[in-house]
Amino acid sequence: MNIDADRVIADLDELAAASGGRHAGAKRVAWGQGWTAARAWLKEKLEVLPVEVSVDPAGNLWAELAGESEECVILGSHLDSVPSGGWLDGALGVCAALEALRVLAAGGTLAAGNPSTATVRLVDWADEEGRFGRSLLGSSAAAGTLDPDEVRDLVDGEGVRLQDAMAACGVTLDSAPDAAVMLKGAAAYIELHVEQGPVLLEAGRLASAVAGTSGVERHLITFSGEAAHAGSSPIRLRRDSFLAAAAAALAAREVAIAHQGVTTVGGATSSPGIPTAVAGRTELMLDIRHLDAASLASMLEQCLSACEDAAGRFGCSVSARRVFAAAPTEFSAELVSLAGSAVADAGGGDGSPIASGALHDATEVGRVVPTVMIFAQSDPPVSHTPSEDSTHAALRVAIDAFGRTVGSVLADITSRN
Amino acid sequence: MNIDADRVIADLDELAAASGGRHAGAKRVAWGQGWTAARAWLKEKLEVLPVEVSVDPAGNLWAELAGESEECVILGSHLDSVPSGGWLDGALGVCAALEALRVLAAGGTLAAGNPSTATVRLVDWADEEGRFGRSLLGSSAAAGTLDPDEVRDLVDGEGVRLQDAMAACGVTLDSAPDAAVMLKGAAAYIELHVEQGPVLLEAGRLASAVAGTSGVERHLITFSGEAAHAGSSPIRLRRDSFLAAAAAALAAREVAIAHQGVTTVGGATSSPGIPTAVAGRTELMLDIRHLDAASLASMLEQCLSACEDAAGRFGCSVSARRVFAAAPTEFSAELVSLAGSAVADAGGGDGSPIASGALHDATEVGRVVPTVMIFAQSDPPVSHTPSEDSTHAALRVAIDAFGRTVGSVLADITSRN
Repeated sequence: MNIDADRVIADLDELAAASGGRHAGAKRVAWGQGWTAARAWLKEKLEVLPVEVSVDPAGNLWAELAGESEECVILGSHLDSVPSGGWLDGALGVCAALEALRVLAAGGTLAAGNPSTATVRLVDWADEEGRFGRSLLGSSAAAGTLDPDEVRDLVDGEGVRLQDAMAACGVTLDSAPDAAVMLKGAAAYIELHVEQGPVLLEAGRLASAVAGTSGVERHLITFSGEAAHAGSSPIRLRRDSFLAAAAAALAAREVAIAHQGVTTVGGATSSPGIPTAVAGRTELMLDIRHLDAASLASMLEQCLSACEDAAGRFGCSVSARRVFAAAPTEFSAELVSLAGSAVADAGGGDGSPIASGALHDATEVGRVVPTVMIFAQSDPPVSHTPSEDSTHAALRVAIDAFGRTVGSVLADITSRN
Repeated sequence: MNIDADRVIADLDELAAASGGRHAGAKRVAWGQGWTAARAWLKEKLEVLPVEVSVDPAGNLWAELAGESEECVILGSHLDSVPSGGWLDGALGVCAALEALRVLAAGGTLAAGNPSTATVRLVDWADEEGRFGRSLLGSSAAAGTLDPDEVRDLVDGEGVRLQDAMAACGVTLDSAPDAAVMLKGAAAYIELHVEQGPVLLEAGRLASAVAGTSGVERHLITFSGEAAHAGSSPIRLRRDSFLAAAAAALAAREVAIAHQGVTTVGGATSSPGIPTAVAGRTELMLDIRHLDAASLASMLEQCLSACEDAAGRFGCSVSARRVFAAAPTEFSAELVSLAGSAVADAGGGDGSPIASGALHDATEVGRVVPTVMIFAQSDPPVSHTPSEDSTHAALRVAIDAFGRTVGSVLADITSRN
């Protein structure tokens, strides 16, 4: 299948211009006005194709190009963004899927325009970015890992409740798990995404197949010491929770290095949190990731032990509470191999698949459907900022590799039927 | 002079009950309703005494018991509190001064009721706590160290402008420096305060004379690295500003220990400040204190150098900006000696004077008037919280020592005239 990368890039440019512009960043926060406008834009693009568009009970948008086979191939990603996001994050995978539908619809010998016998579905997952703190909302509903009770009371930064925001878009939280029906009979899920990291750039590779996504352990760590006046409290009598947190963050980095994983402390919140007082209490969120489940468990154990040590060193106590966890998702070995060949055929060189440290909708879908992702090189290697970008050269190779992967999967299905 | 400590404690209890109650903490934020109510309470207490009450151009409240001598002794502290402050912080010194006026007015042989020849003034300094970030506002105006232009644009946590809050109380910011006239001819300033620290408690001392207040260097330190995705950015490619800040805070502690001073990092603010991103930028406020000016300068130099080292270690840059500085204030050696004897005579034992790491109105007044402070032991040794407290035994010794110190100073003046 020959996919037209330039048309995908043109769609992305058009969408970016309609969603706040490249300079200000993508304004497509899930369930909001910018997001519904982006979906209206997508529907307009789909209108001219022989596809059936629907929204599932979790708010995911689907476009089905019906085939003769019961087997179905799913292509997609997400249109929603962080408040000022990059132009590629999520949108790249949706626009590439849109172009794949176009090619299939145009070149097919079937009534529905599908040259293979498989049904092909585009999906735009809802609220991948976790506006309410729960990432991968729509895809986890479809994958059966969303418990409505666990997210019912979530509010966003402005106090809006998750279920109210969903309801305003006609989605009922309690019905979201019914989206699982959409993955029934799926033979493959293929998602193109921008890497959002520096690995491919540093290696000089334009694209890569992705072997899986790392597991995550995210824990809220609370150090409790004693607030004291910055002037009147001698060092030896202090129980400084900020210093305990500082020592713990540094120790967690050593744990990451030892396991070739990553640990991140993105910031800390102290109280009273004023310049003239020793921090009586400091909270931080410790994010730990590894592709291997056993290594992840070992890292968690060592990090929590390091937190205890750091607390003890500064006369503090410490408590830890898991706020999020995701098991590593290994993608389908067969599809990863297919995608790797496709990247090579597209001119991306022969590289081993890389691991994704970030979670993606593919993390959830991959639990129940054979899945693979393809990454386009990020340059600069940043994400969730308007300056997120990829060169056109990288995008062309990655989009081409995506098209080739889809073509191979469809050919396999056709040959089996 | 025999001061009635129980009456001072009864006044403090009454004031606490009228200002939010002991449990919820003192609600006497400067220029606000609770503060003006507390001042009305004080004025009511002063009404029955032969004193002249006035408010100076900086909003400080004065009550003058006129004497025959031009020499004047000033007694006082501040009624304002942090949002939920302790019952003693500031109020102890004002209530003790009130009781001193009562004793002098009742037992005197002068027309004005003053048994000594000196004029005695009670002062309640305005905005000691720095509602707008500038501590010691009223006393610094009187001491000549307040520049209205430097505080003109300050706003509090709710966006209220300093000059508007003052104006609502009838005080014009630009006229505040005219309060300097109130310190003319002052022979002594004596302030009783709760220690707000653990030094006396740890030493088993109920009260102490205070030798002076430490100098302060407060700097805003900004570490700039690069924001990156917590999952997709390998440790070796990160420029983590939070880790740089953590290492700097730990190093600053070592500097404090080496110089027998104190350094404090009360918290840090990171951006983007989310669990899933390496912090691209982290700011912290570094507070450095020492009684000796040369040691303070050396600590500052070493701390800034440690910040550079920490930044370099994590691939970050760093900038520092002084946001506040106060030179150490050494109190009057003669008055410190008098106060030390008074503490011993009051049953507080013979201890050397301690240094105050916290700033007080006496820090400002002490720049232009012979000054001394007396500390009452804090138990628990905390401040700026409703749980701030002192035992009645400690309060009795400290109040008695305060009365004895005032008596000695007045006797000296009388004997000289």
